[in-house]
Amino acid sequence: MTRGGVLAAAALLALGLSGGAAMAQDQVEKRVFEAGSYQTRGGGTIANVRIGYQTMGRLNDAGDNAVLIAHFFSGNSHAFGRLGGATGPVGYWDAIIGPGKPIDTDRFFVVSSDTLVNVNVGDPNTTTTGPATINPDTGRPYGMAFPVVSMRDFVEVQKKLLDSLGVKRLALVAGPSNGGLQAIEWAAAYPEMVERVMPVIAGEIDAWMQGWLDVWEAPIRLDPNWREGDYYAPGREPPLRGLAEAWKIVTLQANDRPWARQFERRIPEGQDPAKRIGDRFEVERALDATGQARARTSDANSFLYMVRANQLALREYPSLEAALSRSQARWLVVPSPTDRVFLREGVQEMVEILRRAGRPVEVVEIGGERGHLNGVLNVAPVGERVRAFLAD
Amino acid sequence: MTRGGVLAAAALLALGLSGGAAMAQDQVEKRVFEAGSYQTRGGGTIANVRIGYQTMGRLNDAGDNAVLIAHFFSGNSHAFGRLGGATGPVGYWDAIIGPGKPIDTDRFFVVSSDTLVNVNVGDPNTTTTGPATINPDTGRPYGMAFPVVSMRDFVEVQKKLLDSLGVKRLALVAGPSNGGLQAIEWAAAYPEMVERVMPVIAGEIDAWMQGWLDVWEAPIRLDPNWREGDYYAPGREPPLRGLAEAWKIVTLQANDRPWARQFERRIPEGQDPAKRIGDRFEVERALDATGQARARTSDANSFLYMVRANQLALREYPSLEAALSRSQARWLVVPSPTDRVFLREGVQEMVEILRRAGRPVEVVEIGGERGHLNGVLNVAPVGERVRAFLAD
Repeated sequence: MTRGGVLAAAALLALGLSGGAAMAQDQVEKRVFEAGSYQTRGGGTIANVRIGYQTMGRLNDAGDNAVLIAHFFSGNSHAFGRLGGATGPVGYWDAIIGPGKPIDTDRFFVVSSDTLVNVNVGDPNTTTTGPATINPDTGRPYGMAFPVVSMRDFVEVQKKLLDSLGVKRLALVAGPSNGGLQAIEWAAAYPEMVERVMPVIAGEIDAWMQGWLDVWEAPIRLDPNWREGDYYAPGREPPLRGLAEAWKIVTLQANDRPWARQFERRIPEGQDPAKRIGDRFEVERALDATGQARARTSDANSFLYMVRANQLALREYPSLEAALSRSQARWLVVPSPTDRVFLREGVQEMVEILRRAGRPVEVVEIGGERGHLNGVLNVAPVGERVRAFLAD
Repeated sequence: MTRGGVLAAAALLALGLSGGAAMAQDQVEKRVFEAGSYQTRGGGTIANVRIGYQTMGRLNDAGDNAVLIAHFFSGNSHAFGRLGGATGPVGYWDAIIGPGKPIDTDRFFVVSSDTLVNVNVGDPNTTTTGPATINPDTGRPYGMAFPVVSMRDFVEVQKKLLDSLGVKRLALVAGPSNGGLQAIEWAAAYPEMVERVMPVIAGEIDAWMQGWLDVWEAPIRLDPNWREGDYYAPGREPPLRGLAEAWKIVTLQANDRPWARQFERRIPEGQDPAKRIGDRFEVERALDATGQARARTSDANSFLYMVRANQLALREYPSLEAALSRSQARWLVVPSPTDRVFLREGVQEMVEILRRAGRPVEVVEIGGERGHLNGVLNVAPVGERVRAFLAD
């Protein structure tokens, strides 16, 4: 439980609310870590790095019972617990993180942080530093003048956060997708600090993935409102159409055929795509709506920087083999066999590299009808495997 | 051999050129079929339909030894033979079509045609009728006033072509991808006419595929030069950036991880994506170059119409089951297990529907490192299975 959580529980008990302690135990609050000036791995300088984070559980005196959870491409640090009070929403991995759960906060001190260049700039529960942040030198948003950051930069800022919290050793670093890439990067960057790694729906960023990331971002650059990233000035429209199209691609590729089946080949009321070229099928309308909704709370330039950070995963090592061989951790690799982003063949190759390097590695597949997203939405069934992984 | 082919061979023999007959036997020439006025399945009228086609072999007196080959999304009728003389390029399925080959032109009369709304408007070897065609009513290109056409319309125009050639029965209708969809549509539309069907790297157009087709075309609509399709007027630039991005998506999705491996994570000379957000990786450069090259000879509006024709595949039937149950043909289904467009699970479902409907169906998988494109580039290894399929 966080200090804020303890205080909230105490306040509820003082008010004589029955069950208040149990409810409060599930609650988290969002905090902000001020990292100060930060020099990126690419040699740039960010004057004042701030990222959001949340914790649950208690760090032991040795500082070695910590778990770090890293978030997916479009996510933030809200991986577990209720945010915003007793009826607030729970985090995306709440099924496996909490008191008595597989990642047991009665035993572990669990930390989850927002990354640099997080896309959710319009979300009050996300705190990040990126192209939409005010550059103190100019008093205006950085835009495309923000330094390029990499997956390793995400790790370096998390390292500063963990240092500030007194964490000496990570019993586990885990996350889905982009979060899994951060976990892998941690294992390579700080092998002596990482006991266990659990990359979920994540594998190698090879040229195939670099190409797909490029495809994701391309609509933003095509939108005339993007203006080379200079759209923050008052009176300018952000490139919402391009950003919505970018989210549509991500939404579709992160799903799978069974998910799409709900739309059948239905045609919305008033539409006739067999007669009018501008008319749409139901699935297109649904993708449009999802893309537009995501565009409203996210930032196009941050999307571009997040893409680049992914393309630069493990960039400082000559090969995946070289990076993974540095790891001293035990691995639990969790692919989704119907993943259309990180293809099962690619994850399998990573597992084979770990085995050839003599690293202890287990694999547990995650099921469900959502393809890649199974790793975010459907982790409960692998919970006991995670508990066993942490018990050894 | 076409009549033109016979004449060319005769001419070469008359000149006493040794080997001339053998060379000419492999040559094809592109012809144009004038279909006249055509009413689309959606109720529109196209004043004057013209499509290109080519043939090889000789139709027998019964008119029942014909084979129809239908082309892929970005292809044209050049499926077999050399075009443009003895040193011209060979068609995409030349490995399995020709004298003595699995689809044996000594035995079969093989026809391949350009579809309506073919994208290759700038290619002199493609003849099509679509949004870039001059509307005789206005003297200007149709643009988005061109009627919506469906996969069934492709079949109807091919039917008119086959009628004009005297074809009574198809021993086989086959094609890769979009060509496979045409083959399936044929089996449902004219069951009494189709003896065998061979859809290669093709399956159901469900909501999943409708969504992907939407993703493919989205960059065109974002390009400010698209102007709602009104870009043909002198002095206007066509939406080449959007069209190139569309082709990039198709290029990547039609490939597979092993193909991308050639680019490793290389960085082109002078680029530094770890330091400059505008700089690019090698794979991105390669996709850009391919997309731009394809954009130069294709038409953006035709891309949109081709997408819609695909989205409308089997649209006139209440379900895939209903459509396939109409077929009286024998089926040879040829998926690529690493296909990222028509996923193997989807093709497998189609096969199961055929089996449940009691249709004779065989499956032969196609290998290779190119994913979906294996069905265009790597058909030679399944040639003997195709020969056996035609022998029964």
